This record gives sequence, structure tokens and C-alpha cells, in this order.
Amino acid sequence: MGKDGMNVALLGLGTVGKGVYKVMKTQRPEMPQKLNTVLNLKKILVRHPEAHVKDVDDPSILTSDYSQIVDDPDIDIVIELIGGIEPACTYIRDALEAGKSVVTANKDLIAERGGELMEIAEENHAELRFEASVAGGIPIISPLKNSLSANEISEVMGIVNGTTNFILSKMTDEGMDYEQALREATALGYAEADPTADVEGYDAARKMAIMASIAFHSRVTFRDVYTEGITKITAQDIAYAKTLGWVIKLIGLATNGKEGIEVRVHPMLIPQAHPIATVKGSYNAVYVRGDAVGDVMFYGRGAGEMPTASAVMGDVFSVARHTVYHSQGTTRDNVYRKIPIRRIENTVSSYFLRMEVEDKPGVLATIASIFGNNSVSIEQVIQKDKIGTNAELVIITSPVRERHIRDALLIINSSSVVKRVASMIRVYIDQREGEIS
Amino acid sequence: MGKDGMNVALLGLGTVGKGVYKVMKTQRPEMPQKLNTVLNLKKILVRHPEAHVKDVDDPSILTSDYSQIVDDPDIDIVIELIGGIEPACTYIRDALEAGKSVVTANKDLIAERGGELMEIAEENHAELRFEASVAGGIPIISPLKNSLSANEISEVMGIVNGTTNFILSKMTDEGMDYEQALREATALGYAEADPTADVEGYDAARKMAIMASIAFHSRVTFRDVYTEGITKITAQDIAYAKTLGWVIKLIGLATNGKEGIEVRVHPMLIPQAHPIATVKGSYNAVYVRGDAVGDVMFYGRGAGEMPTASAVMGDVFSVARHTVYHSQGTTRDNVYRKIPIRRIENTVSSYFLRMEVEDKPGVLATIASIFGNNSVSIEQVIQKDKIGTNAELVIITSPVRERHIRDALLIINSSSVVKRVASMIRVYIDQREGEIS
Repeated sequence: MGKDGMNVALLGLGTVGKGVYKVMKTQRPEMPQKLNTVLNLKKILVRHPEAHVKDVDDPSILTSDYSQIVDDPDIDIVIELIGGIEPACTYIRDALEAGKSVVTANKDLIAERGGELMEIAEENHAELRFEASVAGGIPIISPLKNSLSANEISEVMGIVNGTTNFILSKMTDEGMDYEQALREATALGYAEADPTADVEGYDAARKMAIMASIAFHSRVTFRDVYTEGITKITAQDIAYAKTLGWVIKLIGLATNGKEGIEVRVHPMLIPQAHPIATVKGSYNAVYVRGDAVGDVMFYGRGAGEMPTASAVMGDVFSVARHTVYHSQGTTRDNVYRKIPIRRIENTVSSYFLRMEVEDKPGVLATIASIFGNNSVSIEQVIQKDKIGTNAELVIITSPVRERHIRDALLIINSSSVVKRVASMIRVYIDQREGEIS
Repeated sequence: MGKDGMNVALLGLGTVGKGVYKVMKTQRPEMPQKLNTVLNLKKILVRHPEAHVKDVDDPSILTSDYSQIVDDPDIDIVIELIGGIEPACTYIRDALEAGKSVVTANKDLIAERGGELMEIAEENHAELRFEASVAGGIPIISPLKNSLSANEISEVMGIVNGTTNFILSKMTDEGMDYEQALREATALGYAEADPTADVEGYDAARKMAIMASIAFHSRVTFRDVYTEGITKITAQDIAYAKTLGWVIKLIGLATNGKEGIEVRVHPMLIPQAHPIATVKGSYNAVYVRGDAVGDVMFYGRGAGEMPTASAVMGDVFSVARHTVYHSQGTTRDNVYRKIPIRRIENTVSSYFLRMEVEDKPGVLATIASIFGNNSVSIEQVIQKDKIGTNAELVIITSPVRERHIRDALLIINSSSVVKRVASMIRVYIDQREGEIS
């Protein structure tokens, strides 16, 4: 830190990078009071500097050469907004090894290699912060690490992908089918040209891995997360759910209980009265259950230029304060446990099952008996629309281990009275009950 | 800090104190990993030690003599849970002057004298933290100071009193009248024997003063907050609001705009679709609007033994970490502006007015003309129940400065066609619009 303040370098000048550039400017007059120092944006790394001349006041800070940043001892903080694994990983490692602190919004990288990078940061008395990697502008990593740190956290449940929440909200509120809602999301810029990472749940899975690691003090990576997307959800599923008092959301659920940690992302039926059921459109929310605090929820914009820039700059301000007070590196990872990951087959849920069956007497008895033989209890049955000569049957089961439902469905699928199991969607249960059964 | 860890003293062993005692015990095995140190509860100050022997494992830590705490150089952190202004204020000042950090849940004291105490803390390189003074276990002070610190905050809106939210929820969901709902709140322990501080809004006002000071970086004290309670809200008001798509909540609203800061606590009609309208029973929520982050909301239990202990111990853990890393005192107050407080007469709202009027032609014309002469536009009128020979009229106005509505009501009250203005309740407007008009 020089006498003229601290120097910051920005890697990447896309949507969020431009937001960070703006906040650096608007907050400049406040910095002396807020930070006891001033932050200067000394370099911006972009692939083609000439393409970004119009984006900055002083084009001389643009560079395509990372050595101008990592080898410059006057640069104190590196903000990584390139995304993806490489070259971002190498850039961050090199910066940390040069003693610079790093702030990143890179969920792919933190979900996959956060552990080793945190170790490198600690060894070099530098900080690695990543509030923006989960749920955009919503403060969640810092509350988990600080305000809630005296809790034993048993559950983190989140709607952490705005694209899929937008699509499901459109399907729920306007009766659209999936393809129609996806087209609208794409047209409005909520979905990317290739929406796979969002609609298949990979994006949400990365965020859940990051939050689970912090909440449970045990490393969870992207590969540990069971993931199912929303592409098979139909307008019928949503309509049936509605009549039963539920909404369908893409939920990330991480729990830590007697049988270990489970982290999964999949569509889920949520009771309409649950606070997370009211989270609509592109908003995100994270619900946390701790032994002392009980239930708390954090809600807001989970993506976008300025909300994400808010989270990035909150981290940058924290690093700056720590540097001013010579306490840099005090924000530790706190991943000190090694808790096993519970396989999806061993998790406990209720299940919503929609199936096409022969429209004749005794069918329900046959199905009920298959379920009964596999330890599955039926809680609710709706028999509704005729489909040609067949009938549509919707069953909600009692909480049961997933392996039992899978066994039952194998047999049901080969039964002559059942034409097709159209949907199997997990239903929210209070996970404290899931522990018992 | 000694080689055997850090020593903590607790002032007060009431509900929250007992919660803190429990968390200190359950978290003890985690402390070496979470904090790089261990916290020992060395002393508990109570008025009558003999009355608390059963509450603790080792009664020798009980004392009624504060000098045993403040004069003990081995005590690093003092947790103040006595409440009220004195002797808490003297105890905290003396502890800070002795270089000890202080964690408190005392909203009365922080709302009134937080400024001077923060100065004493800074002078003595000690910390004064008070997350638990606002909204129980919900992290809000720390997010405002850290994760959201790169934002210019324009609005903080909260349901920050569980007692009144419980009463209003009962009135809304079960059609109870105020007295009935208050009796139930008292029976369930949600309301104190003397409920004045809750039902008159003073408790909420203190919390809003604390949050406004942090959010706007300008000192706001309890005396700056315009306060109205819920005692005049009737079942009729709630029923009319419901038919119009609103719910009535006791809202704390703090805004910082071109005309200065306004902070007020009063009943408000909130659109049913607003996330804060779904906050029911004894839950709390705080809605924050920042220039970068947009809207974020924090939701959870706003009171109680364990949620409040969670917030207290989160602060204690932060102080412990700072002490381990020799960065104690780095969490500054950041109140560096002096923004004037806007008087309630100059604030802008829409208004819900319920009045008894003569049931004859021309009455609405008379009222509308009085409003018109005072710059008040009518947005909606409902004429409904007859009350003897009179009619009940409900009017919703367009956004207007409060002094105009007051002028209009003065004239209306003296008009012969109006028998009584039964209710005047402010209606939520987007405060960004309130700036313009």
C-alpha cells in the first residue's frame, strides 16, 4: 500500500467488470471515510485493449499482458471477473503467490478448486474472497462466516439460479410450457444462447457446493452435488402441484445430519406458505437453519451487472480495510472437518409421481401393493384427466428413502397396468424429520 | 489474551444471557478451529448470585461486583445483556476505557448514546458491536457495514418488532380485534406485562435509529424518529385494506434522499405482493435498497433466547478473531456525515382515510373539493357500510406531502357533513417516486 492509497487491477471488462468500474468511480469520494485509504484502478486486463477504449476514462490502464499486473508490486488487490477454470485459476494462483489479495465472482472455479486456492491464500497471508460467486448481490458468504459463525448450521436451502426461477415463475403464473418460457427468458436476456448450465442445474450446483463448504466446515465440490434440471417439468406437473397447494421450484438443498452431508439440486414441490415459495422471477433467496438462530432467509437479485458488482466491491472494501489495519489474511476458510457425502439413494423425501395408467378397476390396488412391498406409503392420490383410454394418476408419497422409491418405480414401470411414469418430482419435507425415518 | 485463550465476562443472566451461556458451551469444541483460540466465561455479573447457582456449572463465576470484571486485566471481552440506559452505559464505558471490547444487545442504549460510546471504543482501540440490538438473530448490522458497504443506501424498511407483527397477523388472519390479539400475545409471552414500548412503536424506533445511522453514515437517534403505534388500528381498517389488496404492518422506514433523512415508525398499508407483506407472526424482516445491489431482504426471528444469542456470539467470535490477529478496533463506526432530518410534515405518502359521513348526496363532492383545495388528489373511494344514518367512506389519496393531508383533515374535521375521521393510515409508496413529487 503506497502513500497515495491502494492499487487495484481488474481482470475482465464484461458485464460485471463494467459494474465494478462504475462503483469504483461513484464510491471514490466516500473511500477516505469508509476505508481510511483510496483505491486506484491501475490496470484492466482484456484480450483486445483497442476494443475497450470507449469503456474507460483512461485507456492507458488497459492491457492484454497479465505480467504487467502480477509483476507490479504496487498492485495490492486483483479482481478476477474472467470466469471459467483457465486461465482464471493460474492468474489467481500467481496473484496470491505474489502476496496480492484476490476477489472473484468465479463460481465454477471456487466450486471446483476453492480449497487449494484458499490454502495458497493462507500460505501467502493474502485474502481470497468470493461473496459474488453465490447469489449475486445478496450477502450470504460473509454472514455464514461471521454473523452466523457461532451456529451449527444443519441446512442451507436456496433458489440460486435466476434463469430457472424466471422460467418456472412464467410457467406457474402464466401457464406457459417450458419451451415457451425458455424462449421468453432468452429474449429478455435472462437465459444465455446455450442455457445448459442454468436449466440443467449445474450453475445452482456450483453455488450450493460453495455454500455447503462454508456452512458445514467440510469441503464440498461440484462433483459431490446430485443435480437434476428443470427441462422435464411440464405445465401439467405445475397445475397439479398448484391444486395441492404447492409450487415447483429448482431448489438447492444442502443438509448436514447424522448420516453426513447431502447436497442436491433438483426441482421440488414447496408449500405455498413457505417464504421461499414467494421468491419470483429472477430473484434469488437462501434459507439457512442454525441451531441457535433458527431459520433466516436472505433475498435479492442473484445476478446482473450492478448487484454482482456490489458483492465484488463489498469484498474489495473488506480487503482494503484489513490491509489498512495490517490484518490482511485474517478471513480464514474454516473448512476443518471431513464429513462424508450422503448418496442420493440414501436421502429422504416425499415424492410427487404422475403416471398414465389403464383406466380400469384394481389399478390403484396393484400400484399401492407394489409401493407397500417397497416400504413406500401413499399419502395422497388424485385421479383426474382421461388420456384416450388411459387415466392420469398423481400420487404423493410419505417421506421415504430414495432407493425404495427407485425400486418401486422399476417394478411399476414393468407392470402392464402402468403405461408411463411421466414425472417423479421430490416434495419438500422438513429435513429434521428426514433424519428420523 | 492469555496463553489459555481469551476471557469473557457476561453482564446479566436473563433470557438472552442464558442463551449465550449455552452457545458458549456447545461451541467450545469448535473454537480452536473457528477462532484459533478458546473463549472462557470467567465471570457473570448478576444482582443476586445466590439466585443463579442452579443456572451455571461453576457458581464461583457469579458475582454482583462489577469491579471484579472491569478491574480484571485478564478479561478481554464484556457481553452486556442488562438492557436499559443505566447502569449499562457506565459499565460499557468503563469496560471500553479499560481496553476491553464490548458486545451488546442493548437497543435503548445504542439508539440513544451509540455515537459517544463508539468514539470511546475507537479512542481505546477496543470494539463495540451490537448486531443483536436489531432484529435478533438476523444479520443486518454486519452486512450493512461490510458486504453492502460499497453501496449508497437510499432506503431501509423493516418489520422489526415481533410483538406488533404477531398482533397484526392475528387481526389479519383470524379477524381478531386489537385487544383480543394483544391478550393472546401476552398469554403466549410475545408481549410484556406493560406492552407500551412495543405497541407504541418505541422499540421499533430504536432499531430504525440504529440501522439508519449505519446505512446513511449519519447519526440518527431515537428522538429523531417519528413514531406512531398500532393501538388505533381496528378490525375494519384491516378488512378494508384486505379488499383493496393491502395488508397493514407496523413498518419502520428510513430513507435518505435529496431533502435529507427521514426515519419513521407507523402502521402502513403494504401491497400483498411485496415480500415484506408475507412476513408473519413474530418474524422480522429488513428490506434494504442500495444503488448497486438493488433490493435485498433479510428475514428471520427477531427476538428470543437463542436467535439473539446467535447474534451476540457472532459478534463475540468476530472480536475474538480480530484479537487473535491483532486487528482489534478495525470495525469503525463510519458515521462521517451530518445529514439533516426531514420533518414528518414534509414526507410524502399516500393515505388511507376512513371516515363517517352524512349519508346524503353531495357529501363526496364537498370532501373532494376540500382535498382539491389542499393539493390532495383522490385515487380510490369505497363507500360501504351504513352506520345508523351515516355512511362509511374509505378514501385512498395519491402521494402527497403530509402537511397537505393534515391541512385538509383540519378543514374536513370541522365540516358539518363529516361526523368523524376514524383512521388515517399511511400507504406504502415507492420512495423513489416520493422524491419527485
